[in-house]
Amino acid sequence: MNPTLLQQQIDFIKEIDKIKYIQRKTKLIASDRPENDAEHSWHLAVMAIVLAGHSKVPVDVLKVVKMVLIHDIVEIDAGDTFIYDTAKNHANTVDERLAAQRIFGMLPREQAGEFIALWEEFEAGETPEARFARAMDRLEPLLQNTSNNGGTWREFDVDYATVYEKKKVIGEGSESLWKFAEKLLDESVEKGILRKHPTGY
Amino acid sequence: MNPTLLQQQIDFIKEIDKIKYIQRKTKLIASDRPENDAEHSWHLAVMAIVLAGHSKVPVDVLKVVKMVLIHDIVEIDAGDTFIYDTAKNHANTVDERLAAQRIFGMLPREQAGEFIALWEEFEAGETPEARFARAMDRLEPLLQNTSNNGGTWREFDVDYATVYEKKKVIGEGSESLWKFAEKLLDESVEKGILRKHPTGY
Repeated sequence: MNPTLLQQQIDFIKEIDKIKYIQRKTKLIASDRPENDAEHSWHLAVMAIVLAGHSKVPVDVLKVVKMVLIHDIVEIDAGDTFIYDTAKNHANTVDERLAAQRIFGMLPREQAGEFIALWEEFEAGETPEARFARAMDRLEPLLQNTSNNGGTWREFDVDYATVYEKKKVIGEGSESLWKFAEKLLDESVEKGILRKHPTGY
Repeated sequence: MNPTLLQQQIDFIKEIDKIKYIQRKTKLIASDRPENDAEHSWHLAVMAIVLAGHSKVPVDVLKVVKMVLIHDIVEIDAGDTFIYDTAKNHANTVDERLAAQRIFGMLPREQAGEFIALWEEFEAGETPEARFARAMDRLEPLLQNTSNNGGTWREFDVDYATVYEKKKVIGEGSESLWKFAEKLLDESVEKGILRKHPTGY
């Protein structure tokens, strides 16, 4: 391969190291240490491989894995958006689109196009691969919050209906995982770590 | 899928969260913050996808990605082994084999078998996928050390011949990446961040 193309790839690989500094609101399993985007993306990729058999429809696992590995790279420029932040809408902000152009645009043209398209597909959430990838992205923090006495739900005082609405995305990717998630949410209400009513437990 | 099998998968997914606490000796790009195994594995997976075209022979990219995502999970029990540690041989220690059995063994039988086999294949380094995966594992710290004024080479006083011997693994997976790596090593000697001779610069 052309040495200039390799240099572009290496520059991209070095640039995305910055994702290791982007902190999420959710904490590691049974911990108070915030997770960063690299750790989060690694976990989703392993989850996608382990759980692929639960997808509603057969998926191209490599495509799902690519999506989850790169889905948060735009946050290097645009920052992490907390899912229960009511002031800022997560989906596809101008900042994120510019970030995708700049960061994926460091790659050789063909790869840049592939990565931007994968990110757009993930964000749109309409293909089987994007649906399954998004299910992983919603399931991981559910495992974290239930292992942390409610985690960000209690920290930011989010109620059951709000969480349920966000987590429904899991059901678009997998029936069995959604059933499992619903059960976890019910148990969380019973344990008093997720507020059932808009006010009070 | 059988709910018990799903619970086994979830238990595995929660268990491997511990990899986020396993610190490596190498530091992030242009940084003094040590990298952890989750960040490292994420980076190798993206590198494998970006650089797959450089492989000596065509590889099954999903298989390479699976290998790099899980190759360090055994360190949850066995701990990180520093590549330039002369007292401890890295390859396939008894501790690592026991860790593979325990941790991958949490998965449903068929998946446990697949993951253990992938880890063994990576460790043996004899198939095209394992060779390319191991090339990624050697390339990433090279990018880190060259961005950190020699990083662990200077910190642990490792000389050129020792580094060259370890990095040669890159050449088994890719000619163009090895050529690139050799150039980086030569430049490092010129810059005085890698000691050419067994004693003195």
